[in-house]
Amino acid sequence: MNIEETIKTAYGESLNSARFGDKFEEIDAIQSIIKSAKSVVVATRNEKKFKVVFNIISKITDANISMIEIPTNSADLTRMPAVSKGLIAVDSSDADIIISRGRLGIPGSGSFLLIMDKKGRILTGSISPSSIIHKNPIDKTVELELINALERIGIKVKK
Amino acid sequence: MNIEETIKTAYGESLNSARFGDKFEEIDAIQSIIKSAKSVVVATRNEKKFKVVFNIISKITDANISMIEIPTNSADLTRMPAVSKGLIAVDSSDADIIISRGRLGIPGSGSFLLIMDKKGRILTGSISPSSIIHKNPIDKTVELELINALERIGIKVKK
Repeated sequence: MNIEETIKTAYGESLNSARFGDKFEEIDAIQSIIKSAKSVVVATRNEKKFKVVFNIISKITDANISMIEIPTNSADLTRMPAVSKGLIAVDSSDADIIISRGRLGIPGSGSFLLIMDKKGRILTGSISPSSIIHKNPIDKTVELELINALERIGIKVKK
Repeated sequence: MNIEETIKTAYGESLNSARFGDKFEEIDAIQSIIKSAKSVVVATRNEKKFKVVFNIISKITDANISMIEIPTNSADLTRMPAVSKGLIAVDSSDADIIISRGRLGIPGSGSFLLIMDKKGRILTGSISPSSIIHKNPIDKTVELELINALERIGIKVKK
Protein backbone atom coordinates (compact mmCIF):
# COMPACT_ATOMS: atom_id res chain seq x y z
CA MET A 1 0.00 0.00 0.00
CA ASN A 2 1.27 3.49 -0.70
CA ILE A 3 1.44 6.03 2.08
CA GLU A 4 -1.72 7.95 1.13
CA GLU A 5 -3.69 4.69 1.29
CA THR A 6 -2.35 3.72 4.72
CA ILE A 7 -3.11 7.23 6.00
CA LYS A 8 -6.65 7.22 4.59
CA THR A 9 -7.36 3.82 6.14
CA ALA A 10 -5.94 4.84 9.54
CA TYR A 11 -7.90 8.13 9.54
CA GLY A 12 -11.09 6.17 8.85
CA GLU A 13 -10.32 3.85 11.77
CA SER A 14 -9.78 6.84 14.09
CA LEU A 15 -13.08 8.44 13.03
CA ASN A 16 -14.86 5.17 13.84
CA SER A 17 -13.00 4.69 17.15
CA ALA A 18 -11.61 1.49 15.65
CA ARG A 19 -7.90 2.30 15.71
CA PHE A 20 -5.69 -0.03 17.77
CA GLY A 21 -2.11 1.06 17.21
CA ASP A 22 0.36 1.04 14.33
CA LYS A 23 0.18 -1.67 11.67
CA PHE A 24 2.87 -3.57 9.86
CA GLU A 25 1.93 -2.14 6.44
CA GLU A 26 2.21 1.41 7.82
CA ILE A 27 5.76 0.86 9.03
CA ASP A 28 6.53 -0.89 5.76
CA ALA A 29 5.26 2.13 3.78
CA ILE A 30 7.45 4.47 5.89
CA GLN A 31 10.51 2.27 5.35
CA SER A 32 9.90 2.30 1.58
CA ILE A 33 9.74 6.11 1.43
CA ILE A 34 13.05 6.41 3.27
CA LYS A 35 14.90 3.63 1.45
CA SER A 36 13.78 4.72 -2.03
CA ALA A 37 14.61 8.43 -1.56
CA LYS A 38 16.58 9.89 -4.48
CA SER A 39 17.48 13.12 -2.68
CA VAL A 40 17.90 13.89 1.01
CA VAL A 41 18.38 17.34 2.51
CA VAL A 42 19.84 17.70 5.98
CA ALA A 43 18.47 20.79 7.71
CA THR A 44 21.68 21.80 9.41
CA ARG A 45 24.51 24.14 8.44
CA ASN A 46 26.96 22.41 10.76
CA GLU A 47 29.56 20.34 8.81
CA LYS A 48 30.19 17.98 11.72
CA LYS A 49 26.52 17.12 12.17
CA PHE A 50 26.04 16.84 8.41
CA LYS A 51 28.89 14.34 8.10
CA VAL A 52 27.39 12.08 10.77
CA VAL A 53 23.99 12.10 9.05
CA PHE A 54 25.63 11.59 5.64
CA ASN A 55 27.50 8.50 6.81
CA ILE A 56 24.39 6.83 8.18
CA ILE A 57 21.91 7.76 5.42
CA SER A 58 24.33 6.70 2.67
CA LYS A 59 24.26 3.17 4.13
CA ILE A 60 20.52 2.80 3.67
CA THR A 61 19.80 4.77 0.47
CA ASP A 62 21.43 5.60 -2.87
CA ALA A 63 20.21 9.17 -2.50
CA ASN A 64 22.08 12.36 -3.21
CA ILE A 65 22.55 13.87 0.28
CA SER A 66 23.05 17.61 0.69
CA MET A 67 23.03 20.34 3.30
CA ILE A 68 20.28 22.96 3.46
CA GLU A 69 21.32 26.08 1.57
CA ILE A 70 19.82 28.81 3.76
CA PRO A 71 20.25 29.70 7.45
CA THR A 72 17.57 28.38 9.81
CA ASN A 73 18.10 30.55 12.91
CA SER A 74 14.59 31.94 12.52
CA ALA A 75 13.20 28.48 13.40
CA ASP A 76 14.57 28.91 16.92
CA LEU A 77 11.99 31.64 17.55
CA THR A 78 9.08 29.27 16.89
CA ARG A 79 7.17 26.88 19.14
CA MET A 80 8.78 23.74 17.68
CA PRO A 81 12.19 24.65 16.22
CA ALA A 82 13.07 21.15 14.90
CA VAL A 83 9.74 20.94 13.06
CA SER A 84 10.05 24.51 11.73
CA LYS A 85 13.58 23.83 10.45
CA GLY A 86 12.35 20.72 8.67
CA LEU A 87 9.55 22.66 6.99
CA ILE A 88 11.99 25.36 5.83
CA ALA A 89 13.91 22.54 4.11
CA VAL A 90 10.73 20.98 2.65
CA ASP A 91 9.60 24.31 1.23
CA SER A 92 12.98 25.43 -0.11
CA SER A 93 14.21 22.19 -1.74
CA ASP A 94 12.88 19.32 -3.83
CA ALA A 95 14.22 16.63 -1.49
CA ASP A 96 12.28 13.38 -1.06
CA ILE A 97 13.37 13.17 2.55
CA ILE A 98 14.43 15.80 5.11
CA ILE A 99 16.50 15.13 8.21
CA SER A 100 15.97 17.95 10.68
CA ARG A 101 17.41 18.48 14.13
CA GLY A 102 16.74 21.27 16.56
CA ARG A 103 15.11 22.20 19.82
CA LEU A 104 11.99 20.23 20.79
CA GLY A 105 10.12 23.18 22.33
CA ILE A 106 11.10 26.16 24.52
CA PRO A 107 14.76 26.91 25.37
CA GLY A 108 15.94 24.20 27.77
CA SER A 109 13.68 21.51 26.29
CA GLY A 110 16.54 19.64 24.60
CA SER A 111 16.87 18.35 21.09
CA PHE A 112 14.58 16.58 18.65
CA LEU A 113 15.59 14.82 15.44
CA LEU A 114 12.95 14.30 12.76
CA ILE A 115 12.66 12.56 9.42
CA MET A 116 10.05 14.20 7.17
CA ASP A 117 8.88 13.36 3.67
CA LYS A 118 8.61 15.86 0.81
CA LYS A 119 5.17 17.02 1.97
CA GLY A 120 6.39 17.72 5.51
CA ARG A 121 4.73 14.65 6.96
CA ILE A 122 6.62 13.26 9.96
CA LEU A 123 7.84 9.69 9.40
CA THR A 124 9.87 9.14 12.56
CA GLY A 125 11.97 10.97 15.13
CA SER A 126 13.95 10.74 18.32
CA ILE A 127 14.68 12.84 21.36
CA SER A 128 17.83 13.39 23.44
CA PRO A 129 18.24 14.88 26.88
CA SER A 130 19.19 18.54 27.22
CA SER A 131 22.89 18.98 26.41
CA ILE A 132 23.41 20.14 30.01
CA ILE A 133 22.05 16.86 31.38
CA HIS A 134 23.98 14.49 29.11
CA LYS A 135 27.61 15.36 28.34
CA ASN A 136 28.19 13.48 25.09
CA PRO A 137 30.04 15.08 22.18
CA ILE A 138 27.67 16.45 19.53
CA ASP A 139 28.60 13.95 16.77
CA LYS A 140 27.94 10.98 19.06
CA THR A 141 24.59 12.48 20.10
CA VAL A 142 23.45 13.06 16.51
CA GLU A 143 24.55 9.55 15.55
CA LEU A 144 22.58 7.96 18.37
CA GLU A 145 19.51 10.07 17.62
CA LEU A 146 19.46 9.16 13.93
CA ILE A 147 20.08 5.45 14.53
CA ASN A 148 17.35 5.48 17.15
CA ALA A 149 14.89 7.28 14.81
CA LEU A 150 15.52 4.63 12.13
CA GLU A 151 15.43 1.62 14.48
CA ARG A 152 12.09 2.60 15.98
CA ILE A 153 10.49 2.08 12.55
CA GLY A 154 12.46 -1.12 11.98
CA ILE A 155 15.40 0.11 9.88
CA LYS A 156 18.66 -1.33 11.21
CA VAL A 157 21.89 0.44 10.27
CA LYS A 158 25.01 -1.68 9.72
CA LYS A 159 27.98 -0.47 11.79
CA MET B 1 14.43 33.92 35.98
CA ASN B 2 10.86 33.27 34.92
CA ILE B 3 10.16 31.39 31.74
CA GLU B 4 9.29 34.45 29.62
CA GLU B 5 12.64 35.99 30.53
CA THR B 6 14.63 32.86 29.63
CA ILE B 7 12.73 32.62 26.33
CA LYS B 8 13.31 36.28 25.48
CA THR B 9 17.03 35.97 26.20
CA ALA B 10 17.38 32.78 24.15
CA TYR B 11 15.46 34.27 21.21
CA GLY B 12 17.80 37.26 21.25
CA GLU B 13 20.80 34.93 21.20
CA SER B 14 19.39 33.04 18.21
CA LEU B 15 18.77 36.27 16.29
CA ASN B 16 22.37 37.25 16.89
CA SER B 17 23.74 33.77 16.02
CA ALA B 18 25.06 33.62 19.58
CA ARG B 19 23.12 30.64 20.87
CA PHE B 20 25.20 27.66 22.06
CA GLY B 21 22.74 25.15 23.51
CA ASP B 22 20.50 24.91 26.54
CA LYS B 23 21.41 26.73 29.77
CA PHE B 24 21.09 25.72 33.38
CA GLU B 25 18.61 28.52 34.18
CA GLU B 26 16.36 27.39 31.32
CA ILE B 27 16.13 23.84 32.63
CA ASP B 28 15.66 25.26 36.11
CA ALA B 29 12.72 27.39 34.89
CA ILE B 30 11.12 24.34 33.22
CA GLN B 31 11.53 22.27 36.40
CA SER B 32 9.88 25.04 38.44
CA ILE B 33 6.82 25.19 36.17
CA ILE B 34 6.31 21.44 36.45
CA LYS B 35 6.98 21.12 40.18
CA SER B 36 4.81 24.10 41.14
CA ALA B 37 1.78 23.09 39.03
CA LYS B 38 -1.51 23.26 40.94
CA SER B 39 -3.51 21.40 38.32
CA VAL B 40 -2.47 18.83 35.74
CA VAL B 41 -4.65 17.47 32.95
CA VAL B 42 -3.75 14.19 31.28
CA ALA B 43 -4.88 14.18 27.64
CA THR B 44 -6.01 10.57 27.57
CA ARG B 45 -9.35 8.85 28.14
CA ASN B 46 -7.69 5.54 28.94
CA GLU B 47 -7.92 4.70 32.69
CA LYS B 48 -4.84 2.47 32.62
CA LYS B 49 -2.63 5.14 31.04
CA PHE B 50 -4.07 7.81 33.34
CA LYS B 51 -3.27 5.77 36.43
CA VAL B 52 0.38 5.40 35.39
CA VAL B 53 0.73 9.15 34.78
CA PHE B 54 -1.12 9.94 38.03
CA ASN B 55 1.26 7.77 40.09
CA ILE B 56 4.36 9.45 38.71
CA ILE B 57 3.16 13.07 38.65
CA SER B 58 1.79 12.83 42.20
CA LYS B 59 5.33 12.06 43.40
CA ILE B 60 6.75 15.33 42.06
CA THR B 61 3.86 17.81 42.53
CA ASP B 62 0.98 18.52 44.91
CA ALA B 63 -1.25 19.20 41.91
CA ASN B 64 -4.80 18.09 41.35
CA ILE B 65 -4.46 15.58 38.49
CA SER B 66 -7.41 14.86 36.22
CA MET B 67 -8.31 13.24 32.93
CA ILE B 68 -9.34 15.27 29.87
CA GLU B 69 -13.13 15.53 29.69
CA ILE B 70 -13.69 15.34 25.93
CA PRO B 71 -12.73 12.75 23.29
CA THR B 72 -9.58 13.47 21.30
CA ASN B 73 -9.96 11.12 18.30
CA SER B 74 -10.01 14.12 15.96
CA ALA B 75 -6.35 14.76 16.84
CA ASP B 76 -5.43 11.53 15.04
CA LEU B 77 -6.38 13.14 11.72
CA THR B 78 -3.79 15.91 12.15
CA ARG B 79 -0.10 16.12 11.26
CA MET B 80 1.11 15.78 14.86
CA PRO B 81 -1.54 13.93 16.89
CA ALA B 82 0.28 14.10 20.26
CA VAL B 83 0.73 17.86 19.91
CA SER B 84 -2.88 18.36 18.74
CA LYS B 85 -4.22 16.33 21.69
CA GLY B 86 -2.19 18.44 24.09
CA LEU B 87 -3.55 21.66 22.58
CA ILE B 88 -7.13 20.37 22.87
CA ALA B 89 -6.41 19.94 26.60
CA VAL B 90 -4.76 23.38 26.88
CA ASP B 91 -7.72 25.09 25.22
CA SER B 92 -10.47 23.19 27.04
CA SER B 93 -9.11 23.25 30.62
CA ASP B 94 -7.39 25.63 33.02
CA ALA B 95 -4.58 23.20 33.83
CA ASP B 96 -1.09 24.55 34.58
CA ILE B 97 0.45 21.49 32.96
CA ILE B 98 -0.75 19.06 30.31
CA ILE B 99 0.58 15.55 29.78
CA SER B 100 -0.27 14.42 26.28
CA ARG B 101 0.49 11.17 24.50
CA GLY B 102 -0.32 10.17 20.95
CA ARG B 103 1.13 9.46 17.56
CA LEU B 104 4.28 11.40 16.59
CA GLY B 105 3.36 11.90 12.93
CA ILE B 106 1.72 9.75 10.24
CA PRO B 107 0.25 6.30 11.04
CA GLY B 108 3.15 3.96 11.76
CA SER B 109 5.37 6.69 13.22
CA GLY B 110 5.00 5.49 16.80
CA SER B 111 4.20 7.38 19.96
CA PHE B 112 5.22 10.72 21.42
CA LEU B 113 4.69 11.89 25.00
CA LEU B 114 4.72 15.63 25.71
CA ILE B 115 4.58 17.91 28.71
CA MET B 116 3.09 21.32 27.83
CA ASP B 117 2.46 24.39 29.95
CA LYS B 118 -0.83 26.29 30.10
CA LYS B 119 0.01 28.30 26.98
CA GLY B 120 0.77 25.15 24.95
CA ARG B 121 4.53 25.65 25.08
CA ILE B 122 6.43 22.37 24.97
CA LEU B 123 8.57 21.81 28.07
CA THR B 124 9.83 18.29 27.44
CA GLY B 125 8.89 15.02 25.76
CA SER B 126 9.92 11.52 24.88
CA ILE B 127 9.49 9.06 22.04
CA SER B 128 8.94 5.28 21.96
CA PRO B 129 9.29 2.83 19.10
CA SER B 130 6.22 1.79 17.15
CA SER B 131 4.14 -0.66 19.21
CA ILE B 132 4.83 -3.26 16.50
CA ILE B 133 8.58 -2.94 16.98
CA HIS B 134 8.64 -3.07 20.78
CA LYS B 135 6.29 -5.51 22.51
CA ASN B 136 6.00 -3.97 25.96
CA PRO B 137 2.64 -3.70 27.73
CA ILE B 138 1.10 -0.24 27.40
CA ASP B 139 1.38 0.75 31.10
CA LYS B 140 5.10 -0.06 31.16
CA THR B 141 5.64 1.94 27.93
CA VAL B 142 3.82 5.02 29.26
CA GLU B 143 5.73 4.80 32.55
CA LEU B 144 9.10 4.68 30.77
CA GLU B 145 8.13 7.54 28.45
CA LEU B 146 7.07 9.82 31.28
CA ILE B 147 10.09 9.04 33.46
CA ASN B 148 12.33 9.63 30.45
CA ALA B 149 10.62 12.95 29.61
CA LEU B 150 11.20 14.14 33.20
CA GLU B 151 14.76 12.84 33.52
CA ARG B 152 15.91 14.57 30.35
CA ILE B 153 15.22 17.92 32.02
CA GLY B 154 16.78 16.77 35.28
CA ILE B 155 13.73 15.68 37.30
CA LYS B 156 14.38 12.32 38.96
CA VAL B 157 11.35 10.29 40.04
CA LYS B 158 11.67 8.20 43.22
CA LYS B 159 10.69 4.55 42.62
